[in-house]
Amino acid sequence: MTSVTRSWDRLSDHNPLIGFVDACLRGPAQVVLQNNPLTGLLVLVAIAWGAFENGQPRILGGAVLGLVVGTATAVALRVDEPSLRKGLFGFSPLLTGIAVPTFLDDRPLMWLYLVLGAIATTVVTLALNAIFKTWGLTAFTMPFVLTTWVLLLAAYQFDRFTVLTNLKPMFPGEGQLTGGRFDWDLVPTFLRGVSQIYLINSWVTGLIILVALLVNSRWSALFAVIGAVGATLLALWFGADAASLDKGLFGFNAVLTAIAVGAVLHRPGALVTLYTLFGIALTLFVQMALATVLTPLAIPVLTGPFNIATWLLLLPKRHFAPVPNHERAKETVVSTVKHSV
Amino acid sequence: MTSVTRSWDRLSDHNPLIGFVDACLRGPAQVVLQNNPLTGLLVLVAIAWGAFENGQPRILGGAVLGLVVGTATAVALRVDEPSLRKGLFGFSPLLTGIAVPTFLDDRPLMWLYLVLGAIATTVVTLALNAIFKTWGLTAFTMPFVLTTWVLLLAAYQFDRFTVLTNLKPMFPGEGQLTGGRFDWDLVPTFLRGVSQIYLINSWVTGLIILVALLVNSRWSALFAVIGAVGATLLALWFGADAASLDKGLFGFNAVLTAIAVGAVLHRPGALVTLYTLFGIALTLFVQMALATVLTPLAIPVLTGPFNIATWLLLLPKRHFAPVPNHERAKETVVSTVKHSV
Amino acid sequence: MTSVTRSWDRLSDHNPLIGFVDACLRGPAQVVLQNNPLTGLLVLVAIAWGAFENGQPRILGGAVLGLVVGTATAVALRVDEPSLRKGLFGFSPLLTGIAVPTFLDDRPLMWLYLVLGAIATTVVTLALNAIFKTWGLTAFTMPFVLTTWVLLLAAYQFDRFTVLTNLKPMFPGEGQLTGGRFDWDLVPTFLRGVSQIYLINSWVTGLIILVALLVNSRWSALFAVIGAVGATLLALWFGADAASLDKGLFGFNAVLTAIAVGAVLHRPGALVTLYTLFGIALTLFVQMALATVLTPLAIPVLTGPFNIATWLLLLPKRHFAPVPNHERAKETVVSTVKHSV
Repeated sequence: MTSVTRSWDRLSDHNPLIGFVDACLRGPAQVVLQNNPLTGLLVLVAIAWGAFENGQPRILGGAVLGLVVGTATAVALRVDEPSLRKGLFGFSPLLTGIAVPTFLDDRPLMWLYLVLGAIATTVVTLALNAIFKTWGLTAFTMPFVLTTWVLLLAAYQFDRFTVLTNLKPMFPGEGQLTGGRFDWDLVPTFLRGVSQIYLINSWVTGLIILVALLVNSRWSALFAVIGAVGATLLALWFGADAASLDKGLFGFNAVLTAIAVGAVLHRPGALVTLYTLFGIALTLFVQMALATVLTPLAIPVLTGPFNIATWLLLLPKRHFAPVPNHERAKETVVSTVKHSV
Repeated sequence: MTSVTRSWDRLSDHNPLIGFVDACLRGPAQVVLQNNPLTGLLVLVAIAWGAFENGQPRILGGAVLGLVVGTATAVALRVDEPSLRKGLFGFSPLLTGIAVPTFLDDRPLMWLYLVLGAIATTVVTLALNAIFKTWGLTAFTMPFVLTTWVLLLAAYQFDRFTVLTNLKPMFPGEGQLTGGRFDWDLVPTFLRGVSQIYLINSWVTGLIILVALLVNSRWSALFAVIGAVGATLLALWFGADAASLDKGLFGFNAVLTAIAVGAVLHRPGALVTLYTLFGIALTLFVQMALATVLTPLAIPVLTGPFNIATWLLLLPKRHFAPVPNHERAKETVVSTVKHSV
Repeated sequence: MTSVTRSWDRLSDHNPLIGFVDACLRGPAQVVLQNNPLTGLLVLVAIAWGAFENGQPRILGGAVLGLVVGTATAVALRVDEPSLRKGLFGFSPLLTGIAVPTFLDDRPLMWLYLVLGAIATTVVTLALNAIFKTWGLTAFTMPFVLTTWVLLLAAYQFDRFTVLTNLKPMFPGEGQLTGGRFDWDLVPTFLRGVSQIYLINSWVTGLIILVALLVNSRWSALFAVIGAVGATLLALWFGADAASLDKGLFGFNAVLTAIAVGAVLHRPGALVTLYTLFGIALTLFVQMALATVLTPLAIPVLTGPFNIATWLLLLPKRHFAPVPNHERAKETVVSTVKHSV
């Protein structure tokens, strides 16, 4: 395995085209904060499975197109080479490329919209990173979230597009709300919580993503499960909407927070795990609040709550023994996301 | 008096438990930007009075629980000792602890919600202070505002909670609006403007808070009165809603701005007073605008307008003779709020 | 011409009153990022024409009052002299002064509202510039946008004011939407796209503004046209509302972005032009999205989209050969807007 990896890395270093493919492959992995082309490849397989299972193959097309256009835009704008090579300019456009065909109706113009959106996602990534550098943070998936919100909100004003989000603009509290019950069907729900990171509703996709995580980092896979289970159970306890819960919609943001805070950006440990458990609750609260704010506009929260909660959890820069804080701070600034384990 | 104060200070320095009690007592005082345990104690008395007068003793319980949990979280996260000792990690969780039982219905789970909210308030305090340090500012009560907004907005999505804000989600301009008239009933209205800082509708509470201010700083007490009178009269002149005006709801944000800008963060003087009078108007405008923005979501503005207006007034960093600006800037950064007089 | 300019400059340097008039004249020019008193004078003529053509002379009064009060506030707050002299404290209050009589009903109290708004605009300019300096940016016209939003949103809460924006609070997607058709009436539409920068619906005003630009910078005039044509055609293609399109409402933000990104803040060139064309599309998307967000509040987007899009386009700090980036960065920080050509 290691020798295969090494040959690939050498190939990527010498052949610009392979290097570009390598950067593109790392994109899907960086959504879940992993820097590994094999993880990225498995995630693409997971997306493909979900797209075909749900009868929407164009979602796979959108994902690949977004990934390639976004990464190519980064090349054209001459971003710094090491970040590009880590896939740090592919993960947000990939998600934009999934979101556009998911939420807009199918027509040729949609693909132009998607390409413009992918270019914009890379520009927004550069812009937000310039801002967040001030506090030793990065933009995570927020460029995807902001760009996709803009694309969906703008589509309301264009006669040629129809927004298909299953949401209807209304006042908070107007919708029907029925809490769920605890039963064994929760296991696929947890897995759907993982798949929803990529806007896909499929427990098989969730399972493949967990394997993709395992390939690169056991801690990340473990915390992904903790995040999905923790947030879903808390949402169940507090009486969140059963239909959304079943689709895994209360899990995916907490999965990302748990991976980031529990496994990647801190050295895993007892105190860090405690802080991560609080972080999972915080992410759920932020998600529910954001869902209420967006109710009159009928657009989804996407991974906005993960970004907001994780920034809030990282900004205090606490020392969690035995994590040397200066080391973490340096890592966050310099390499954005740490390749753990 | 001074000798009693000195003995208490010495006791607090040597006994960690007394030190914690001292930090907790300074919390309620720091809401109105005072660093004095006696002021804090009197504020707690004022809150107790209001809670019992309005038949809601659980509000006192929430206040104390929020204060203790928030301060204890700061201890657990090992924040810097001097800020902790000044009560700077108690004032926002105290307000969260008042807001939760005020705006959510009474049930056991509400207390868990409150505790999670108080912990979150301290994390958000650390996060926002890290951001605002860039511009020599602090977060004031914004951590309370943001956390409470998140808690209330999230409660809409939970079957087990009911939001009780007396507000109904609607479009701006849909509500009935009747301006008030000038009469002698305005005196208790001014005092309720002071009590509403702590979300309490009681002129007696307002009076006790003025005494609490007077104990520590005559300038702060004076500017509190100027803020309450100025904003209420301006709101009356422009024809703001008479019912809200009567409850003191157009006064409390301006009271805080007036104390901060007029008495604590600048050396009081003629130019500063002129700037403060403009600041009172600015705070009222921001409050009205924020109320309109929040109309479709049916959540209250809380002390958000004070924070926004005061940041806007401090950011220009003007030299108000004879205030040495470098001195003020240093003070703001280093000790957050100055213990004046 | 040059000798006249030189005499005027010498006069302005020596006579404080003439200096103040000069600063005031440069204000209207700085809205379109030009530093030239003649350009400013022509813009005032353009505003006057539009005000009288539309039967609302009080708009000219508001413009002049806002300009003078805003600039005088800057003098009173002792801002840095060179920025003041360039008109950098006049352009946002000028726009606030136009917006208030445009969107609020005519009554004496409106003028007090306008004066308070103009003072606030200058304070907000200082505040936002202090924040944006962190990233080598300036606030552009955002102080006008934020202040005017606050003034309009607050007016909803005051019995004595009526908001007249031709907008009705509603949910996104509720309004009738009919796309337009391509025809020769688009030429005046493009010119109205220029005039709407100053909230005026008149192709003559747009033409005079183009002349005003030409007096100072051919590149700026050229890119203004590119922005108006590009954004209007893109909006037409995607099926944006025909009535708004006809008024030039989809052009004015893109005109500003095109001038800023294509002509003033970068050295004009092929790559810069390509980036500017993308920027025009980005500005349109942001404008449409913001329009949707503001639909429930029934307030206009103003020049908010230009500000947001231009910040996003400048933050990545890309090197566009042959633009020496360090030079641009320095210019942006030091002198805010470059006087080009």
